[in-house]
Amino acid sequence: MASDPPLEALVFDAYGTIFDVYSIAALCEQIFPGRGSALTQLWRGKQLEYTWLRSLMERHEDFAHITEAALRYACAASGLDCSASDRATLMQAYLTLAPYPDAILALPRLQRFPLAILSNGTPRMLEAVLQNAGLAETFSHVISVEEVGVFKPSPRVYALAPARLGVDKSKIALISSNAWDIAGAAAFGMQTFWVQRSGLPMDELGVVALKSARNLLELVDELLHTRSRA
Amino acid sequence: MASDPPLEALVFDAYGTIFDVYSIAALCEQIFPGRGSALTQLWRGKQLEYTWLRSLMERHEDFAHITEAALRYACAASGLDCSASDRATLMQAYLTLAPYPDAILALPRLQRFPLAILSNGTPRMLEAVLQNAGLAETFSHVISVEEVGVFKPSPRVYALAPARLGVDKSKIALISSNAWDIAGAAAFGMQTFWVQRSGLPMDELGVVALKSARNLLELVDELLHTRSRA
Repeated sequence: MASDPPLEALVFDAYGTIFDVYSIAALCEQIFPGRGSALTQLWRGKQLEYTWLRSLMERHEDFAHITEAALRYACAASGLDCSASDRATLMQAYLTLAPYPDAILALPRLQRFPLAILSNGTPRMLEAVLQNAGLAETFSHVISVEEVGVFKPSPRVYALAPARLGVDKSKIALISSNAWDIAGAAAFGMQTFWVQRSGLPMDELGVVALKSARNLLELVDELLHTRSRA
Repeated sequence: MASDPPLEALVFDAYGTIFDVYSIAALCEQIFPGRGSALTQLWRGKQLEYTWLRSLMERHEDFAHITEAALRYACAASGLDCSASDRATLMQAYLTLAPYPDAILALPRLQRFPLAILSNGTPRMLEAVLQNAGLAETFSHVISVEEVGVFKPSPRVYALAPARLGVDKSKIALISSNAWDIAGAAAFGMQTFWVQRSGLPMDELGVVALKSARNLLELVDELLHTRSRA
């Protein structure tokens, strides 16, 4: 097999990769003492499930609506009474998710590349969470699946990156902590770098990540070296 | 709103609705003492996740391959060494899943309708599991998603039922224990009857089941009465 072409742009997933979706657990714990961690896990699991199911059903709703629907389900399934005001508080917290420390440290070292976000989030959610984390200027492109009305890992989503960046897909790296995101991007034909935060094995979806590491900082050298490998 | 038209055919989901996918837990427990229940749950969860992800990725593999891939992942993620022989044993067990007792009792009472299976399973898997359960003669149509190469809840799957049965979708009942299956069929325009085996609330996917009950036997009267409601 030929070696991979040198990278010309880096595209990052947002939720789970740059931003810690579990950073909301403390607030959940405050509202529902003793239940914060389990509720946050179920909420996140259902949020993803609903993106896949609605995409397959061809009944798209945006990520803000899906996130709130998943929260309603997670509370109901947990026997927790979540008032409209609690829901509003938790949804608001999604706009101020904490970035991972390794992301904060890694991103400045990668500025030689055009950096982009490619996310399930709505433009409004992404603008707010980046702004609140002080990362608004870091990315030249913030690409939301709302442009195509379907969620990852549809190839229609990944096709947005080469179209918007003007770079061939084989020269773009997709960097994500989500194994299903890596699988989708690899199937589409991008180079994939997996931030293996969970420590769990790669999903068995017929594709593997080009490279993987435990956090973004550990991927910096791989991303920089890839450029000179041609 | 107009009342629902009288039912002219009943279409059943197989796995989870007629057949207990957790009946395999005893065999898992025998192979992996102390881990059978957790492994069976993870296996089932990943199996479903992979059907959705591969459909969205537009990289279809049949349900037998997906089920085995999910087993490989579940074992790896659980730190269990699953030999090729163990995998073959567990995959073989999928062909002899136990039918739910309420299904055995309910189906003979519904023979006034044409009865069909509409399942993610491959034709070979479905033929075997029905044969082994003594249900081969119960259903006039056994419809597999393999005919369209995509999994539930894609509308392309549900469209197989009216096409094969020659009955308008509004006069077909889809009976399933899987909330996402109910959501897909309802979005497509079938009447939906949810076998609420898990006791969990309905998923928040923007649609609700027409009727629900804790098991198939409790749905028999609803299904029979619907006919005379026109």
